[in-house]
Amino acid sequence: ENKSVQAVADALEKHPITFSLPQQFYSDADVFQIEMEQIFYKEWLFVGITGEIPDNGNFITLDIGDNPITVIRDQNGEVRAFHNTCRHRGSKICLVKQGKVPKLVCPYHQWTYELDGNLLFAGTEMGDDFDKNDYGLHKVNCRVAGGYIFVSLSEKPTNIDGFFDDLTHYLEPYDLDNCKVAVESTLVEDANWKLVIENNRECYHCSGNHPELLNTLLEWDDTEDPRASDEFKAQVAAKQAMWEEEGIPYKHVSHGHGLRNRIVRMPLLEGTVSMTIDGKAGCKKLMGRIKNPDLGSMRILHLPNSWSHAMGDHLIAFQVIPLGAQKTQVTTKWIVHKDAVEGVDYDVAHLRQVWDATNVQDRTLAENNQKGINSKAYQPGPYSTTFEFGVVNFIDWFSDTMQKNIKASSEKE
Amino acid sequence: ENKSVQAVADALEKHPITFSLPQQFYSDADVFQIEMEQIFYKEWLFVGITGEIPDNGNFITLDIGDNPITVIRDQNGEVRAFHNTCRHRGSKICLVKQGKVPKLVCPYHQWTYELDGNLLFAGTEMGDDFDKNDYGLHKVNCRVAGGYIFVSLSEKPTNIDGFFDDLTHYLEPYDLDNCKVAVESTLVEDANWKLVIENNRECYHCSGNHPELLNTLLEWDDTEDPRASDEFKAQVAAKQAMWEEEGIPYKHVSHGHGLRNRIVRMPLLEGTVSMTIDGKAGCKKLMGRIKNPDLGSMRILHLPNSWSHAMGDHLIAFQVIPLGAQKTQVTTKWIVHKDAVEGVDYDVAHLRQVWDATNVQDRTLAENNQKGINSKAYQPGPYSTTFEFGVVNFIDWFSDTMQKNIKASSEKE
Amino acid sequence: ENKSVQAVADALEKHPITFSLPQQFYSDADVFQIEMEQIFYKEWLFVGITGEIPDNGNFITLDIGDNPITVIRDQNGEVRAFHNTCRHRGSKICLVKQGKVPKLVCPYHQWTYELDGNLLFAGTEMGDDFDKNDYGLHKVNCRVAGGYIFVSLSEKPTNIDGFFDDLTHYLEPYDLDNCKVAVESTLVEDANWKLVIENNRECYHCSGNHPELLNTLLEWDDTEDPRASDEFKAQVAAKQAMWEEEGIPYKHVSHGHGLRNRIVRMPLLEGTVSMTIDGKAGCKKLMGRIKNPDLGSMRILHLPNSWSHAMGDHLIAFQVIPLGAQKTQVTTKWIVHKDAVEGVDYDVAHLRQVWDATNVQDRTLAENNQKGINSKAYQPGPYSTTFEFGVVNFIDWFSDTMQKNIKASSEKE
Ligand code: FES
Ligand code: FES
Ligand code: FES
Ligand SMILES: [Fe+3]
Ligand SMILES: [Fe+3]
Ligand SMILES: [Fe+3]
Repeated sequence: ENKSVQAVADALEKHPITFSLPQQFYSDADVFQIEMEQIFYKEWLFVGITGEIPDNGNFITLDIGDNPITVIRDQNGEVRAFHNTCRHRGSKICLVKQGKVPKLVCPYHQWTYELDGNLLFAGTEMGDDFDKNDYGLHKVNCRVAGGYIFVSLSEKPTNIDGFFDDLTHYLEPYDLDNCKVAVESTLVEDANWKLVIENNRECYHCSGNHPELLNTLLEWDDTEDPRASDEFKAQVAAKQAMWEEEGIPYKHVSHGHGLRNRIVRMPLLEGTVSMTIDGKAGCKKLMGRIKNPDLGSMRILHLPNSWSHAMGDHLIAFQVIPLGAQKTQVTTKWIVHKDAVEGVDYDVAHLRQVWDATNVQDRTLAENNQKGINSKAYQPGPYSTTFEFGVVNFIDWFSDTMQKNIKASSEKE
Repeated sequence: ENKSVQAVADALEKHPITFSLPQQFYSDADVFQIEMEQIFYKEWLFVGITGEIPDNGNFITLDIGDNPITVIRDQNGEVRAFHNTCRHRGSKICLVKQGKVPKLVCPYHQWTYELDGNLLFAGTEMGDDFDKNDYGLHKVNCRVAGGYIFVSLSEKPTNIDGFFDDLTHYLEPYDLDNCKVAVESTLVEDANWKLVIENNRECYHCSGNHPELLNTLLEWDDTEDPRASDEFKAQVAAKQAMWEEEGIPYKHVSHGHGLRNRIVRMPLLEGTVSMTIDGKAGCKKLMGRIKNPDLGSMRILHLPNSWSHAMGDHLIAFQVIPLGAQKTQVTTKWIVHKDAVEGVDYDVAHLRQVWDATNVQDRTLAENNQKGINSKAYQPGPYSTTFEFGVVNFIDWFSDTMQKNIKASSEKE
Repeated sequence: ENKSVQAVADALEKHPITFSLPQQFYSDADVFQIEMEQIFYKEWLFVGITGEIPDNGNFITLDIGDNPITVIRDQNGEVRAFHNTCRHRGSKICLVKQGKVPKLVCPYHQWTYELDGNLLFAGTEMGDDFDKNDYGLHKVNCRVAGGYIFVSLSEKPTNIDGFFDDLTHYLEPYDLDNCKVAVESTLVEDANWKLVIENNRECYHCSGNHPELLNTLLEWDDTEDPRASDEFKAQVAAKQAMWEEEGIPYKHVSHGHGLRNRIVRMPLLEGTVSMTIDGKAGCKKLMGRIKNPDLGSMRILHLPNSWSHAMGDHLIAFQVIPLGAQKTQVTTKWIVHKDAVEGVDYDVAHLRQVWDATNVQDRTLAENNQKGINSKAYQPGPYSTTFEFGVVNFIDWFSDTMQKNIKASSEKE
């Protein structure tokens, strides 16, 4: 097996990052398994927002591959993550997507764990050799930054403290401890996870596919974009001056070479303040300490599994979870101030319309991309370094991370 | 491949039977295939009851793995089993779950077999070299004991005559040639077959999960159970005296070391006579020669695929068939006297209510057990030797049988 | 892998063609993959009829294995085939089953191809090194014969010009450039593709299974059939004299040894003219230049994936596409004159009734055949060389083609 892992690393080393990947990286079940092990079981993954688990005992669950995880606020208010599998005979413990519990009680034989994972009770007859200290829940590394919760299944996760620090700074105005999920959607797409990310990393396909989105989105991410007009640059400058005055972070920051994990705030189309169908605020009550709804959209990219749009009135967080070589789950959460009242401050249908439509359009694009790539006639094609620079950056990150992690794991053995 | 079979045997040899099995035994498709070959294609399997095929030409069918089997009463009244695949081009012959036929006629080109499997007719033009004697149905070893029908796909099945003899003795009062299936249910569970058996082999999970069942069931299997109270022992002694007088077998018998295939009659909760929601008889007409409904429940365990509860008024037989590494079929049959009249002697809803509820509860437990075990964080956990001695016995049987059968097959090669 | 391909060739070399194949050829996923590569990715496959794409820009699509294909009439009226995968990032281009387009425009980023596959437009920013001539659609070999369209995914397809020439001659009266599909059906059968073909290659199963079909079909394919009666021979002679006079081809032609790809016109049951439930014409307007509806049925066999019945009033074309080792798609198209008017000249329910019923009956037979073959008790059984000579011919073709193609591909390496 090591040989095939090495073959994957070698194939990536030879591959030019300005071309789409060879077929096996999008289609093959074995390569997918290697990617899960080298990326999704090692790198930091976005899993949710602190406002989803406001009280002690609140938890959310998710599956990363075959691994059920619980993210819970413990008895001291600290956010922790555990492998959601009982140390007795392995039953899943938290069975629902989210909830609130005084203790973690296994539904099979009622082994009972403290919210920090320590085993409190294991029946009355486990024998004299049994020591409860040996049977606490297995911990998962967990970090909170600006209200965004990340986990890593690795015992020694990659250090991305710089990104976490920036995120804390940029999300500060949003006060995500005091937000709530107004609504969420989950799509399962018959496409490899990288096709989902590639699709998100360019807007070359927007004009032909996303009429709703283009009501408010300006394509350029960056005034450095060679396509950016003088008018666009003037608009950006004016907005930035306003944000500067209000103490709203907006400057482009990125981590790793090649614009990988990054944050930037960009204006929306002149006259619009939020990614809604009419460009008006989706929620009257603004988030956190924000006073001015006209904050454009702060775009957060966290590879391999998340992107967000943070506006003044609401924040939309996207999470990608691979389910198979050609199956990917995309969850979208529309986040508002915790005290915003449905029907008064916001209307769910209005809030979600644009990205519901956009998600479905992108699913179709990704699925048709997958079908064509499965052909034996497929061969890697050239990215436009202008229109698709974000895709090139992603492929660069993917290739680099895979090679680095494979090298590290082969050295460990 | 032999190497991986040997690896499985080695893993079992090293594994302590007081801990749940390593993950691969619950999750892995290759290990599952080895278990099918070493256990389900070799050991005796419970397939039905003679009362289901009362007349010559009556048959029942089932699939063991990919192998369709017919169990039929032949032209002389003998119960036989065949591979349900035509010797012409292989079509399945009996297409329905049960039925009655004068001959076994293949639906494809009407090759026709006697009920004892001999080929009678093969079209008119098979050429001079064709000898019908060469093309009888392939036989499957088949044994009847006390009305329970067992098959073994092995050509030289394990000798378990001692168990068959006991079963004949213990089931004699029930006269299973003259019973009928009042109703049956089939559940498909997303769990490995051993998780289904393990679940059945302990009642540690009952108090938290089976309110209906605990209306009548006494947890202890055995007066030797260290948890058995004096009151319980007195109740057992009184019932046993009564059964002794009536000539109803009740003594604990078991075969193989460690309480494997075994039979024992135990009282139900004081004041109840049957596993129904109100503890009253589910069928007014009692089975066989039974006069007193208060027979508690005779529990029959036949590894790897069956358990039963035989009461005075009805008998419930459970059959387990693995469908995949994480998929198992559980069939439950409620058996009554063949002359019992629905709506007069028994009400189907009343008869099935308790075990319908219990089966669904157990399915949920087994499926959540599976999900947790699939985690890479799962590791074998300790069984309580008090509460879970039956599970330990099962793991012991499983481990022992696998090792023995793998050894025998490697010697044969 | 080459070793296992060679093992497949060796198994076929040893296998007597008068016995059904060993289990692995009907059940095994790896053998299936080898068959796809050696047969379905190399041999000529029937994909449709020119009348389905009458105008320039008309296209039909299909998947051969994981390979999406477009068959299109180009800007000059020529029929061409392409791999339906964009040279940019691989998206599928034509997304629907059939349609009409001025250019081939990729839905993802609007790369635009001429109908002959040349790339016309690839965005505005592909850089100076990009040459559109390098990025035309990948071509698929395509041939038209008598209106039947065939493709081959091989770069050097087998030469079957003799068959194409005959087909052109025999289909000439039908003028298939001026026909239309009155109705079509698609069945997915849980059976290996060879079981579907074997089923079609004999009528030994007809009397027991196809009452509707036998209203009009005469079983014998051939006056040489040893079962053919004098009466049948006289009927054939009378009809042939009539067809001779009308200039309608009818003589038996076949290609390759052993009656493989072949064409023959045979009478239907005396008093019937079409394969309808009442034997009357299914369409009042006859096809092409045909004046006399009483043309019996011209049977066209094209291995590995098609058979047809061409009558005077309509033509029924069947197409087989394997989807997996045990999954096969069967498409049936009822073809009539393009000017025939539904409700006036033909009634769809009347037209399709017989073969709808027959297809469903054959699906059941093939699926039950598969289930029996999956048994470990299955072993190859003898074909009747009288009733099942067509099956023997198919197995002969299959075995020969596999061995030949495997040999050629191993020499190429
Ligand atoms: S599996 Fe959790 S308590 Fe038994
Ligand atoms: S397959 Fe049974 S008669 Fe042909
Ligand atoms: S994939 Fe076809 S234009 Fe981009
Ligand atoms: Fe998009
Ligand atoms: Fe239970
Ligand atoms: Fe047929």
